[in-house]
Amino acid sequence: MTSTLVLLRHGNSDWNQKNLFTGWVDVRLSELGEKEAKRAGELIAGSGIVPDVLYTSLLTRAIQTADIALLEADLAWLPVKRDWRLNERHYGDLQGKDKAQTLEQYGEQQFMEWRRSFDVPPPPIADDAEWSQAGDRRYADLGDQLPRTESLKLVIDRLLPYWESDITKDLAAGKTVLVTAHGNSLRALVKHLDGISDDDIAGLNIPTGIPLVYELDDDFRPTKPSYYLDPEAAAAGAAAVAAQGAKK
Amino acid sequence: MTSTLVLLRHGNSDWNQKNLFTGWVDVRLSELGEKEAKRAGELIAGSGIVPDVLYTSLLTRAIQTADIALLEADLAWLPVKRDWRLNERHYGDLQGKDKAQTLEQYGEQQFMEWRRSFDVPPPPIADDAEWSQAGDRRYADLGDQLPRTESLKLVIDRLLPYWESDITKDLAAGKTVLVTAHGNSLRALVKHLDGISDDDIAGLNIPTGIPLVYELDDDFRPTKPSYYLDPEAAAAGAAAVAAQGAKK
Repeated sequence: MTSTLVLLRHGNSDWNQKNLFTGWVDVRLSELGEKEAKRAGELIAGSGIVPDVLYTSLLTRAIQTADIALLEADLAWLPVKRDWRLNERHYGDLQGKDKAQTLEQYGEQQFMEWRRSFDVPPPPIADDAEWSQAGDRRYADLGDQLPRTESLKLVIDRLLPYWESDITKDLAAGKTVLVTAHGNSLRALVKHLDGISDDDIAGLNIPTGIPLVYELDDDFRPTKPSYYLDPEAAAAGAAAVAAQGAKK
Repeated sequence: MTSTLVLLRHGNSDWNQKNLFTGWVDVRLSELGEKEAKRAGELIAGSGIVPDVLYTSLLTRAIQTADIALLEADLAWLPVKRDWRLNERHYGDLQGKDKAQTLEQYGEQQFMEWRRSFDVPPPPIADDAEWSQAGDRRYADLGDQLPRTESLKLVIDRLLPYWESDITKDLAAGKTVLVTAHGNSLRALVKHLDGISDDDIAGLNIPTGIPLVYELDDDFRPTKPSYYLDPEAAAAGAAAVAAQGAKK
């Protein structure tokens, strides 16, 4: 038996537009991001793929994306599971900092290492820093597990146990699962699903707002290559993300 | 130990504006309804009451109300539980019919009996009728339990078991619970909480978009009278609902 998994990266946020490192800072979608979410809902509605359950992170921009897309697809009533393990990578002390200023301050080599290395996290954020999540009620249950910074490797380390314990259970029950999350939590999942190496994952860019579809077998391995519901827009979107990584 | 329950009736919908019987037909909020939801979120944010968990019906207008209100209150991340037992009363064969035409066709006595009697449901809707929910995927698990019409008594019969099995569990755990639902499912709950008689419940009108707060004891009984977060607007809103019942 195969099952279907749909991944959706949230669209443009207020801080994308301001060119700030975001991570776990709980910013909202920009108007452009809302439009991207609506378009994602149209793509899902037109695809013939009908999700049975929604997973989101605990970050508002992913939740907004799901709400807008599902309303558009007449699926607002889907059962919802939210979990911090789908959150964006925690950007440590870079959270809230201007990307261009950070590049200038630390130089391109350090900047790119923080952005794209597999296992080098940025410096940790202090609990009393302005953009820390210490004390945020939604993470109260995490206790000492609350990240203060993360590499992509650390994202994988917290995400895959949740994939195994929860998401694959719904897939095994034959459900079509929609996961609405973030650039790095989705890269972590795609790395796992497609068996991408630690080196090659740096080159993978997931475009915003375009549903990415996997057909999975009983072992939750792809039965064929994954595909975007709007391949042309996805290619353009991935190129734009790559350009952002190179230039800013 | 006391716990806090907040009830929120969804705002104006497309079909309120068209003066049609709605029931389980899955219409959306009107622009006015969206504004009411946003105002509800402002009231919650300003109240000092901080919900821990959200319950909604499976109907889009209640879900939209919750999404808009919680976004406004910076609580989009709340865990969500959705259940059909919080749905509006099923209006049977009246669903989709114009209220003024129905009044004219059946006369005021019959009309008011369907609208306000405790235990007389409207005629059942046929499964092949335009506004039937037979075949709606979100209710697939109900099987023969799917209502074809309901009186307020039947709403209570399906709602109270869910109140006992799920909502009171969260209250017992000390959680502040927000329930976003409908005129009649909330009347059913208020009837139970305040011990209102079968006769008197006909006179109770819950205004739209204004959070109603209960402080409950260990037996889930009110420790003091419930109150609206905006009492003046609530009084005006309840009068407007009563006037609608009398005239249309």
